[in-house]
Amino acid sequence: MLLELFDCDPDAINNLEAVKGALVEAAKRAQATIVDIVFHEFNPFGISGVVVIAESHLSIHTWPEYRYAAVDIFSCGDVLKPEVAASYLVEQFAAERTSVVEVQRGLFLQPSGTVVNKAVAAVGA
Amino acid sequence: MLLELFDCDPDAINNLEAVKGALVEAAKRAQATIVDIVFHEFNPFGISGVVVIAESHLSIHTWPEYRYAAVDIFSCGDVLKPEVAASYLVEQFAAERTSVVEVQRGLFLQPSGTVVNKAVAAVGA
Repeated sequence: MLLELFDCDPDAINNLEAVKGALVEAAKRAQATIVDIVFHEFNPFGISGVVVIAESHLSIHTWPEYRYAAVDIFSCGDVLKPEVAASYLVEQFAAERTSVVEVQRGLFLQPSGTVVNKAVAAVGA
Repeated sequence: MLLELFDCDPDAINNLEAVKGALVEAAKRAQATIVDIVFHEFNPFGISGVVVIAESHLSIHTWPEYRYAAVDIFSCGDVLKPEVAASYLVEQFAAERTSVVEVQRGLFLQPSGTVVNKAVAAVGA
């Protein structure tokens, strides 16, 4: 899940502890098992962070000067609830506009997953 | 850039040091400035890792049992060369099939970036 957060509260996305706390809490609410946490603050603005989870990872990059944050929620299996994490982050950063794109990965491994429309068999009468 | 690596050498993507070394070297070849590196090995198979770079991050998740690895190369600015990193990883893991999807982020911030086709003005004669 690729999440775009626009028109965020610039203070909320420029505070290392706040951003880290939000991503960790989002991971927990999504039922993720946290394995590792790395966050960095950039000069003059911006925070990058990753929460590595047993189900893959959550990452965030913030541009407070543009009131923008980009979040990726990469998950495998069907236990994780990325939409719960996404909603929580939208709320925490007071994002006024958002965009969510879901990208399926590893589809060649699961041929059924690549079928978008099942052809209707209409042979005979 | 979302990179799918199929039919990889299973040994290459199940070795923590090899996967970490490859992702770090890919980041360097792409001209990234490395800020932090975190890698974990899962039981019974699989490695997850992230290289946090000044320009955002590279991440990898491997499923040796499926000979599959998913790589994300998230970059900002125009110094980074994600395609160089991608080619290097394809070679290192001996992937026989690959898929690459590029997703533009933060487009609302740069209205010109959202224009895919410029309409041809054909008014008058």
